[in-house]
Amino acid sequence: MLPNIPYTQYKRIVIIGAGFGGLALARELARRDDLQIVILDKNNYHQFQPLFYQVATAGLEPSSISFPLRKVFQSKKNVHIRVTEVTAIHTDRKSLDTSLGEITYDFLVIATGATTNYFGMKEIEERAIPMKSVSEALALRNRMLQNLEDALAVDTDDEREGLMSVVVVGGGPTGVELAGTLSEMRKYILPKDYPELDFSMMKIYLLEGLDKLLPVMSEQSSEKSREYLEKMGVTILTSQSVAGYDGRYVVTKQGMKIRTDNLVWAAGVKANVMNGINPDVLVKGGRIKVDEFNRVQGYSDIFAIGDVASMSEGKFQNGHPQLAQPAMQQGKALAKNIWRALDEKPPKPFVYNDLGSMATIGRNKAVVDLPFIKFQGFFAWLTWMFIHLISIVGVKNKILTFINWFWSYVTFDQSLRLILTPKVLPPGYVEDPEPEHAKAAGV
Amino acid sequence: MLPNIPYTQYKRIVIIGAGFGGLALARELARRDDLQIVILDKNNYHQFQPLFYQVATAGLEPSSISFPLRKVFQSKKNVHIRVTEVTAIHTDRKSLDTSLGEITYDFLVIATGATTNYFGMKEIEERAIPMKSVSEALALRNRMLQNLEDALAVDTDDEREGLMSVVVVGGGPTGVELAGTLSEMRKYILPKDYPELDFSMMKIYLLEGLDKLLPVMSEQSSEKSREYLEKMGVTILTSQSVAGYDGRYVVTKQGMKIRTDNLVWAAGVKANVMNGINPDVLVKGGRIKVDEFNRVQGYSDIFAIGDVASMSEGKFQNGHPQLAQPAMQQGKALAKNIWRALDEKPPKPFVYNDLGSMATIGRNKAVVDLPFIKFQGFFAWLTWMFIHLISIVGVKNKILTFINWFWSYVTFDQSLRLILTPKVLPPGYVEDPEPEHAKAAGV
Repeated sequence: MLPNIPYTQYKRIVIIGAGFGGLALARELARRDDLQIVILDKNNYHQFQPLFYQVATAGLEPSSISFPLRKVFQSKKNVHIRVTEVTAIHTDRKSLDTSLGEITYDFLVIATGATTNYFGMKEIEERAIPMKSVSEALALRNRMLQNLEDALAVDTDDEREGLMSVVVVGGGPTGVELAGTLSEMRKYILPKDYPELDFSMMKIYLLEGLDKLLPVMSEQSSEKSREYLEKMGVTILTSQSVAGYDGRYVVTKQGMKIRTDNLVWAAGVKANVMNGINPDVLVKGGRIKVDEFNRVQGYSDIFAIGDVASMSEGKFQNGHPQLAQPAMQQGKALAKNIWRALDEKPPKPFVYNDLGSMATIGRNKAVVDLPFIKFQGFFAWLTWMFIHLISIVGVKNKILTFINWFWSYVTFDQSLRLILTPKVLPPGYVEDPEPEHAKAAGV
Repeated sequence: MLPNIPYTQYKRIVIIGAGFGGLALARELARRDDLQIVILDKNNYHQFQPLFYQVATAGLEPSSISFPLRKVFQSKKNVHIRVTEVTAIHTDRKSLDTSLGEITYDFLVIATGATTNYFGMKEIEERAIPMKSVSEALALRNRMLQNLEDALAVDTDDEREGLMSVVVVGGGPTGVELAGTLSEMRKYILPKDYPELDFSMMKIYLLEGLDKLLPVMSEQSSEKSREYLEKMGVTILTSQSVAGYDGRYVVTKQGMKIRTDNLVWAAGVKANVMNGINPDVLVKGGRIKVDEFNRVQGYSDIFAIGDVASMSEGKFQNGHPQLAQPAMQQGKALAKNIWRALDEKPPKPFVYNDLGSMATIGRNKAVVDLPFIKFQGFFAWLTWMFIHLISIVGVKNKILTFINWFWSYVTFDQSLRLILTPKVLPPGYVEDPEPEHAKAAGV
């Protein structure tokens, strides 16, 4: 295979990853056409990570929160998209190794984000369910629904309790939102679907290593979210770190032992860094140290943005929070600096504009920290919905998501409870078989 | 594992398969509660087969045309649903072997439908793409999109043409609708997504063994559909039977040879019959011979309905057409006969009420045969949409499908072009591993 990207008179900028940072950068850059833009991503779509938990809990379809990359750049002749995996960087000859062959660059932007961090615990990695992609969220949905089917058919209550119960590890927004939604499903939906099961056997645990939930948010939000979840019947265990999981029991370093077949791991992330980057520039969490212009230390033509990058700026001396906002803001700022470079103007340093953070816990329940005000409850919940709705890429996706939310709110139901996987297709004739091809066919 | 279905004072009726026939039967039966109803299906959802082709061509999400079975029967305490596969019937002791263990019945209804018939051609079975489930439709979508990605990266035009071209075998509604939609995607959507590809290389062939398309419909509809498709650039090859496919070339018995990596097989079906049924009652297409009360020959307590059943009635001496309508009507009629049996009344013979048939070819183009009138074009297309919309199970599904259709119509676009498969999850701890469990986890 060949990348088949033509050489033009213009500089080529290669962007690895089309998450919040990479997509914001590419959209901004594509407003000028005196630059060739190459976007490399493992998937042919952008995914809206803040709503993965709703995919996992049958509230939204993956397609409502994903957007085809080619559609974003349909009218742009200078944008080339390749669905491929980057395995290494050769900074000496300014090129990348990919599953489609070698691709050269004039400028390179690493926007590869972060992946689940199991902190070296192989046992957890093999058995826990991660939540860092829409595919993983869909797999979690399929697994939980299949477990309920299995719970109907097992012989003992111990097995039944194991299949029905869920342990969510990580008290950040994903963990809090997932635990909250699961508890609402347990209350409103599942007993109707499975009148033969006793849902008092379905335990929901939320484990967090620190002494509070939502540690990056305000004290007020942290306390309120705990109060909400406890009222909803979620068992919250703070200051508990998972030490092991044999597929039946989660054990913590503090000596607890909890029975579950479903361990969801939302406890930490590590940066996605490929081979060829000087290991000296990696800092805490595997992130790449960048300067205030998002330049990777020691290179003038390589940049990093978003979760994978760590910039010391203002009060963020150990890097910005690994969220959508810093990534998008860095993407936009870097686009402008690249334009400045093309126009032979000096770059401007990045300054993060903290717009606040929020998490939803359930019906009419959310917590919101804005720079000048913090609030919780129904109005916070409306704010959360509004902000997320306008942030989803695509008008139709916004409409479909709104209808799904409205419907679920009115009917107390989510009707996407299908255990559905694409059939494994025969691969057909492939001249030069690629792992991507097999993966796409559902193998 | 155990089926765990309680014995009650009431008769137990076991329905295998929740397609159009099985679902219609179960819904009707569930109106009385002096009967225990057990529904067995491989999936936890009912699927709306007439729109599979729209899932395959990225026009609809699987969830818009699938409906969770448990939701249909939420308030019915006497309905027991089990997601399982039936492997054999023991008519002597009135029981079934399933992947959950043995299940006994008082009455048994076989509503297992039909599956793809490759007419014994192993080579085709291994390499062609079937269209008989929503999973297969989704797999076809993933495959075609991935092939276009691969087409960007191959070295030769021969490989590119093979990856881009599609051969659809079977000139029934599925084949006609699929070929029509593909040709509209080729015209309106794909060139915008892939400006780097030359779509004159994407050939679309529709092969049919008989001398006309839509052989079960009127001469008028058959001719008009050919005219429409030819205008849309589909190469129609009638009186051509596929003899082989090596993954690169489709060859026909009549001596044609066509280059494609994508062979879609919608050429025929055979009934799904499990072990234990007396082979003497099987007739053409592997269907089970039933009397006018849908009773399987030689049994008073076993019935068959829909595609799997063959009843000689009126002008349908070799069984009714294998479509939704006969299945649904037989399901309803059988429910009433079972009530009559419970009330010790004699059964009534089934009479098929032919409501007509229809197929859509593209924007503003469809063919409709009603009992007293046949028409084609824009009004037929509106009729087709209306009938299909009201037939989809679930109000929200109707709304979402309508929005998707409206959106596609106005924007000339389908935005579901995601190559998305659930991640393979670790199976976790399973006391008694079942193939279903592994399948559900995406293995």
